[in-house]
Amino acid sequence: MEPRVSIVTLGVHDLDRAVRFYEAMGLTRHAGITEGVAFYQMGGIILSLFPRGELAKDAGIDPDGSGFSGIALAYNTRSEAEVDAVLSRAVEAGGTIVRPAGRAFWGGRTGYFADAEGHLWEVAHNSTFPIAADGSITLPD
Amino acid sequence: MEPRVSIVTLGVHDLDRAVRFYEAMGLTRHAGITEGVAFYQMGGIILSLFPRGELAKDAGIDPDGSGFSGIALAYNTRSEAEVDAVLSRAVEAGGTIVRPAGRAFWGGRTGYFADAEGHLWEVAHNSTFPIAADGSITLPD
Repeated sequence: MEPRVSIVTLGVHDLDRAVRFYEAMGLTRHAGITEGVAFYQMGGIILSLFPRGELAKDAGIDPDGSGFSGIALAYNTRSEAEVDAVLSRAVEAGGTIVRPAGRAFWGGRTGYFADAEGHLWEVAHNSTFPIAADGSITLPD
Repeated sequence: MEPRVSIVTLGVHDLDRAVRFYEAMGLTRHAGITEGVAFYQMGGIILSLFPRGELAKDAGIDPDGSGFSGIALAYNTRSEAEVDAVLSRAVEAGGTIVRPAGRAFWGGRTGYFADAEGHLWEVAHNSTFPIAADGSITLPD
């Protein structure tokens, strides 16, 4: 296994609602493949929105599940102010604040939102994890 | 929000067991930050393993949850044979096959495994989504 992730697929209850949320967050849906799925080119990886039941069916598993997913995505910002801006935008887009912006235990600024389907995103500014112009993030030496 | 994901955090019940799994998959744990967390540089993003209860606490939510998480990560391979190889390696590493390798509804070859903590990974060969030498994947035009 090479050190990479290709696609992050978020199972959604309402694909149109999920698409509206991420569009309102400023992402552009891939125009080429739109039948029952939404793809977003996110730098070198792909974000996919796919009906939750279809995802479970594709994996051959029971679609039932509730409570905490056990997974969080993180969007690291280029400034502390951007943490607040992204969280505000998430609310305007139809998401909810899970944890308001504040000081992180590791020293930076952090908050969490849930997207319109309930998926958990941390929004964090961590000056020790540099972000390149192309959006890639690097662990410190 | 720029089109990027910075970190994917998998909440784990047993951090040492999770680390052993990903080490056996061929990933190298970041040596710089190891206190209660494991980081992996995955191309331009970071994979993080963090105790599930700590993750819920950090987000300020109830840690309870069961059944399907509603999320799948995908590792796209450079060949069809590599799908089978990665799935086999996942079993040797302490994971389980969720869906054996076979033909995908979209035409390629695909299978799913669960890591040692139950997190779902699709392993897929999709010749229409090119993978660069650096591991980045691109949606087709």
